[in-house]
Formats: sequence, structure tokens, C-alpha cells
Amino acid sequence: MTHSPEKICNKLVVEPASRLDLARRDPSDRLGFAGKRDAELRLAEDIAAMAALQDVFAAVATHALLIVLQGIDAAGKDGVIKHVMTGVNPQGISVHAFKEPTSLEARHDYLWRAQNALPERGRIGIFNRSHYEDVLVTRVHPELLEEFRGEAERQGHAFWRERFEDIAAFERHLTRNGTVVLKFFLHVGKDEQRKRFLKRLEDPNKQWKFSASDLQQRAYWKQYMTAYEDALSATSTACAPWYVVPADHKWVSRLVVATIVVAALRRLHLTYPVPAPQMRALLETAKQQLDA
Amino acid sequence: MTHSPEKICNKLVVEPASRLDLARRDPSDRLGFAGKRDAELRLAEDIAAMAALQDVFAAVATHALLIVLQGIDAAGKDGVIKHVMTGVNPQGISVHAFKEPTSLEARHDYLWRAQNALPERGRIGIFNRSHYEDVLVTRVHPELLEEFRGEAERQGHAFWRERFEDIAAFERHLTRNGTVVLKFFLHVGKDEQRKRFLKRLEDPNKQWKFSASDLQQRAYWKQYMTAYEDALSATSTACAPWYVVPADHKWVSRLVVATIVVAALRRLHLTYPVPAPQMRALLETAKQQLDA
Repeated sequence: MTHSPEKICNKLVVEPASRLDLARRDPSDRLGFAGKRDAELRLAEDIAAMAALQDVFAAVATHALLIVLQGIDAAGKDGVIKHVMTGVNPQGISVHAFKEPTSLEARHDYLWRAQNALPERGRIGIFNRSHYEDVLVTRVHPELLEEFRGEAERQGHAFWRERFEDIAAFERHLTRNGTVVLKFFLHVGKDEQRKRFLKRLEDPNKQWKFSASDLQQRAYWKQYMTAYEDALSATSTACAPWYVVPADHKWVSRLVVATIVVAALRRLHLTYPVPAPQMRALLETAKQQLDA
Repeated sequence: MTHSPEKICNKLVVEPASRLDLARRDPSDRLGFAGKRDAELRLAEDIAAMAALQDVFAAVATHALLIVLQGIDAAGKDGVIKHVMTGVNPQGISVHAFKEPTSLEARHDYLWRAQNALPERGRIGIFNRSHYEDVLVTRVHPELLEEFRGEAERQGHAFWRERFEDIAAFERHLTRNGTVVLKFFLHVGKDEQRKRFLKRLEDPNKQWKFSASDLQQRAYWKQYMTAYEDALSATSTACAPWYVVPADHKWVSRLVVATIVVAALRRLHLTYPVPAPQMRALLETAKQQLDA
């Protein structure tokens, strides 16, 4: 028994205007998939479909696609990009990793750097972390807010509500102007994160990825989950929905992201541009010239 | 009998300070490769090698890699990107297609937009066309130069010599600061271009790619070849060499680019960063904490 893309979307989406409760979402859910081997075959099919759809998408260039990937450390964001998007023509993709803001970025409002990294029409843009960091890490650690810190503390929830509102309005603007927005929260359990950290610590080719702060953040697990619940509940809209992706099994999360992306591209019903009548005449002349 | 990467490099490079004569470079050269099937197997091996090398390259982040792709219409630039670079983690690649300059770009010097699109350390940047358009298309059509047109005509060769010098200095600066620069001219014969145009005109999924100007440019074939000979002769340096890639057989050009890129990455002898002693102690503590 395997779910259709539609069923997967419906099961994982955060319903607009509903309250997300992460405790009721199982990070180790297999979504009825038989197992890893089966999932890998399906993933390969999805990647092939995505590659074909991307070609039309780039040709038509009426839409852009923005994929937002969020999740705590070791949730598998890099892996999703590597294993889902490798196989799609890199000419049509741009990946932007949001790190600690640069000093220039920090001098702008927090949406500025997201705006700068948006994909143009015809392209797929992937945000590895995103503008949501500004309602997640800064929510858990308001000391990072620097100049707004006092205000955030004075205003409390109102401060964050305004940020959610501004983010939702920003994304609404994007979707109104031809950008399809898909947002994925890779939901990994605390014990699975522990295992992944340990694995990372033991792999000489991955040790460089580890930083002391990764471990420190684990102490704030509960606060992060609350921040995610608040942010996702407030910003999952019909036009820019959030999906909570079970991520304890990497093969599940990769397949889910691929399935939802393919479904979203298919829903656009794009076909290669057909030359206008005067263009047809021109193509005919060109043919004759080349044949001569 | 197949050539080693080193032999291919040596055969195809434009020797610094030498004069390139394109008439002596055969666009249909198979470079001793047995045929398409064999080449495809080798290409798959190269892509796998590139994917593994890219992972270390991103981890170390000491270098950037800039790949410049030039060639006339239908030389196969898009195909090289699609067939050589699909399979490498898109998180590590950025592809920048240089089109007609935007009005903002046109208000800057011609290297400005190239500078803006450079890959950061740890990333592979691909220029699909590049700053070389400003000594190629503008050389053949000086009317595109607008405000510099008068000067270009007054100064003649001196004007272009200065541009070559500036480009070489720009690339020297890049290579001195950690960017590996590889430049490929996809060399396709005039008759092969004709065949590809005809094919494009007949494929309903590719007709949209055709523009009347593509055909018009064919009338300037000789001027373009001279412009390429001048530009490549003047800007092929030990640190930023040009390779003339036989491109009548797509499988040859794709394999050549892959081979040369892999060889360049291998020459860096990169290994995953090894944690410093105090970091090792930290990793040990982290392990104990996680095991507890």
C-alpha cells in the first residue's frame, strides 16, 4: 500500500490557520512505503521526471520555483539537496545556503538577503535554511537580534507575530508574481539527531562539519520545536504551504521532497512554447536557407 | 589507443604566447577514442570522480573553480553543462549564463558582471558565455559598443589589445587568489552547425530556442573565427589556459571537458580537513556527552 502524491501532500501539509503540534507528527513515519530499496527506485523515477519537467520549466520561463528547506542540525538538508537535486540540470538550479548573516546582510532588514537570492523565472531556487532563521534561531536566542533585542523583549509575542505577518506577505507577493513556493521542515527526532552527530564525529571525512555549537543547540531542543510550531502554524498558507517531512529515515524524507516537487511542477501543466504564426514563417525561411 | 588526460590537455591547449590557427584544429577530431559508447562509459566515470572531488573541494574551501565555456551558437555549451555537470551536487555549483547585458550591466565596465558572478571558495562556477563576449560579439559588431564605438574604431587593434590585457590581468588576479580558471572553446565546424540548426528547427521542443539572429550570425562566421583566434591567442596563459575542444561530436567535447576538469581538481591534491589538536579534544568531549 503506497500513498499517492496527493495523499502525501495532504498528510504532511500544515493546514493554513491550523495549529501545528509536532508531538503528533512522527519523525520515523514511513508513510506506508515498503522500504529503502523501493523508495530508491521511486526516487530515481521522480528525479528523471523532475529533470524532464525542469527542461520545459526553463523553456517557458513563466514561473520560478522556490524550495525552502528548514530543519535542525543533521536533519538532512544537505542530503536532500545532494540526493534529490543531483540529476537535474545545474543550469536550471541555484542553491543558496543561509549562514550567519555577513556584516553587510546584518545592516539590512532580514528579508533583504532572501530577496537577493530568489530564483528568476525559469529557474529552481533552493534555500538551504532561509529567512525563517530570523524567527527560529533569533527566537530561541534573542541576544542575536542586537539592536532589536530590547524591542523584541518589550513587545514579546507581538514582535514575532509581525515577523510572521511580514514573511507571509513577502511570500504571497512572490506567489502572485509567478513564483511557486514550497517549504519543507525536515522533522527529525532528538534521538536520531544524537545518532547522526555520533556518526559524524566518527567519520574522518565528516568531522570537519562538526562544531561545538551544534551540541550546545541540542540543549534548546524544546525551545526550537516551539519556535518551529509557532512559525509554521503562522506562515503555512494555501499559496506557500509548509510540509512537515518525517526525516528519521533519510530515504523517506528524500522521496517525500521529490514527490511533492514533481507534483507541484506537474500541476503547472507546462508545455514547450509553440512558435507564433509569424515565427513559423521565419522558421520555414531559415530551413530553406540552411538547406540551400 | 586512448590518450591520457595529460596528452589531451597538451594537444588541445592554446600554448601561451603562441598564435592559434583554427584551420589547423579539426572540429571533428575523435582524439583516438573508440567511439560514443566507450566515451559515455568514461564520461560516467569522470562524473563520479568529479562528484567525489567536489565534496572535498567544498569541505576544504581553499579554492574556487571557474569554468568558462565559449563557442558559437549550437556549439554545445548548454549540452556540456547538462551532460557533464548533472551528477555533481548542485549545492556546489553555480551556473551563470551571460546574455545581452541588462541596462544596469551596460552602465558598468564589461568585467563588472563577470566579477559579480564569480564562484566563492569551495564552489564551482560555470560561465555559459562570459566576459569574452566583449571581445567577440562586440569585435564582430562594434556597433554594439555604443559609447566606446568611436574610440574602438579610432584606436583599432590597440583598443582590443587593451581589452585582452585587462582580461588576462583580471584572470591572473583570480588565479593568484585561489581560483582555478579553465577556459574551453567548443570548436564546431560550419557544416555541423548547419545540421544542428536544421535539427533544432525540426524539433517542436527546440524550436523556441531558435532566433532569427542565430542564422544572421552565420554570415559572420569568418569574422568570428578571427575574433576567437585573436582573443584566445592573447589570453591563454599558464595560469588560465584556453582549450580548443573538438565539438563536432558531442560525446568528444563532453568527455574532453570532464577529463580536463577532473585532472585540474586532482592536481590540487585536496584532502578532507583534519581537526586541529584542540578540536580533537572537543570532538572527544562531544562524543562522551552524546553517549551519556
